[in-house]
Amino acid sequence: MQAFETSLRVRYSETDQMGVVYHSNYLIWMEVGRIEWCRARAVNYREMEADGVLLAVVEAGCRYLAPARYDDEISIRTNIASANRRMVRFEYEIRCGRRLLATGFTRHLFLNRELRPTPLPARYQELFAIGATAS
Amino acid sequence: MQAFETSLRVRYSETDQMGVVYHSNYLIWMEVGRIEWCRARAVNYREMEADGVLLAVVEAGCRYLAPARYDDEISIRTNIASANRRMVRFEYEIRCGRRLLATGFTRHLFLNRELRPTPLPARYQELFAIGATAS
Amino acid sequence: MQAFETSLRVRYSETDQMGVVYHSNYLIWMEVGRIEWCRARAVNYREMEADGVLLAVVEAGCRYLAPARYDDEISIRTNIASANRRMVRFEYEIRCGRRLLATGFTRHLFLNRELRPTPLPARYQELFAIGATAS
Amino acid sequence: MQAFETSLRVRYSETDQMGVVYHSNYLIWMEVGRIEWCRARAVNYREMEADGVLLAVVEAGCRYLAPARYDDEISIRTNIASANRRMVRFEYEIRCGRRLLATGFTRHLFLNRELRPTPLPARYQELFAIGATAS
Repeated sequence: MQAFETSLRVRYSETDQMGVVYHSNYLIWMEVGRIEWCRARAVNYREMEADGVLLAVVEAGCRYLAPARYDDEISIRTNIASANRRMVRFEYEIRCGRRLLATGFTRHLFLNRELRPTPLPARYQELFAIGATAS
Repeated sequence: MQAFETSLRVRYSETDQMGVVYHSNYLIWMEVGRIEWCRARAVNYREMEADGVLLAVVEAGCRYLAPARYDDEISIRTNIASANRRMVRFEYEIRCGRRLLATGFTRHLFLNRELRPTPLPARYQELFAIGATAS
Repeated sequence: MQAFETSLRVRYSETDQMGVVYHSNYLIWMEVGRIEWCRARAVNYREMEADGVLLAVVEAGCRYLAPARYDDEISIRTNIASANRRMVRFEYEIRCGRRLLATGFTRHLFLNRELRPTPLPARYQELFAIGATAS
Repeated sequence: MQAFETSLRVRYSETDQMGVVYHSNYLIWMEVGRIEWCRARAVNYREMEADGVLLAVVEAGCRYLAPARYDDEISIRTNIASANRRMVRFEYEIRCGRRLLATGFTRHLFLNRELRPTPLPARYQELFAIGATAS
């Protein structure tokens, strides 16, 4: 399972009066990393949702090591730490240049359209590298 | 048609590195004013949406006169400037204490569940003071 | 050290297309809880910052148990789990009525105006129940 | 004065429970357009702020013609409608593919570090195409 790296530029609206990025925005950036990770593996999350498979966040965490600042070019390295037919855990490294700003994770349940937990359909298992034995 | 006043406190996340509230947040505050205006008239907008009547913003504007700052207690005075069965225009005055910080407006179309424009059902016309002649 | 409870109402802007509150907003709600916890103990965080004492988030985590929805009245119960002159850890329980929606924590370093770690000045130690032996 | 076009992808966090982008986000996108407009003309707004020249929004408006949706690739065409040493007015067209989603404007005052209105220093007048006669 390969990591995938995407980048974005810090928006003015993401800063706070301390002069740095407000901490909840890192969770939004992790979402950007996650979606682009899917896209890099030829899965469009929008279509996946339209297909009735939703990824609901059940846990998130972030350690903030150094502040991001307005106009910084941020890179987000996204990887899957573990996955099975019910759950997936993504991990993230957020950098500005070579400087590590934050590390984080999100844990997700697979839901159906009614927002009920549901095993991941077989057609998406390859995306998350879930083998036959893992199901 | 009476104006209605509601209040909120500026959140840290709403500030930017200029040390004042980032300007897009005023549109969110206007939404708070609008919803509370409805509630004060005994209409719960959540139930109105569940009932298939949605208010879609088609235009918004704001003039910023003085900055709001973190922890300020903000009051939002909301009124209807005009309404008919297709559209409603709200106007807002945003203050900190007696100091006027901003004035704004939003214009809305009534939509049905399919997000198509639809005349406002009779049961909601009183809320917006739309008379028989206005329909 | 007593817990403190504050409440807020879910804004439309806080929802996402899944029809529930987007998960990063819970971190903003924790900030609201934290600030009101301070206020309940007669400390205005705005003045504390003006006084050169800043609380910088160095870690945050949240477990999402049930979704919050638009217009829900949310209560946030905030407490201090531990504190010393360098750091403080807040814990939160987020509820809608009696239903527990999420639990979370934030860990903070005390910084000075130059955003450098600095021991908490004595005049604020009582706020965080830091005793003489803890310094 | 040439228009400049930049693009971004709609984030999940920018949608609301109506299934479309929440309207205040368009103001944030306009900011992205404005900053990239500056960058395309070799001016880094971060450095301009560090240099003591701030652009404060004094008015903003937006007309919403068609909804933006999650994962849409949005283009923002930014132009200057008028400028003098005290003020500048930007105009924006927001599109998804060839479809016009919204038009908007922002009007800004030039401020100094103390957030007081100040005439734009000569070294930045070329950026905004302010001629000798306009000063």
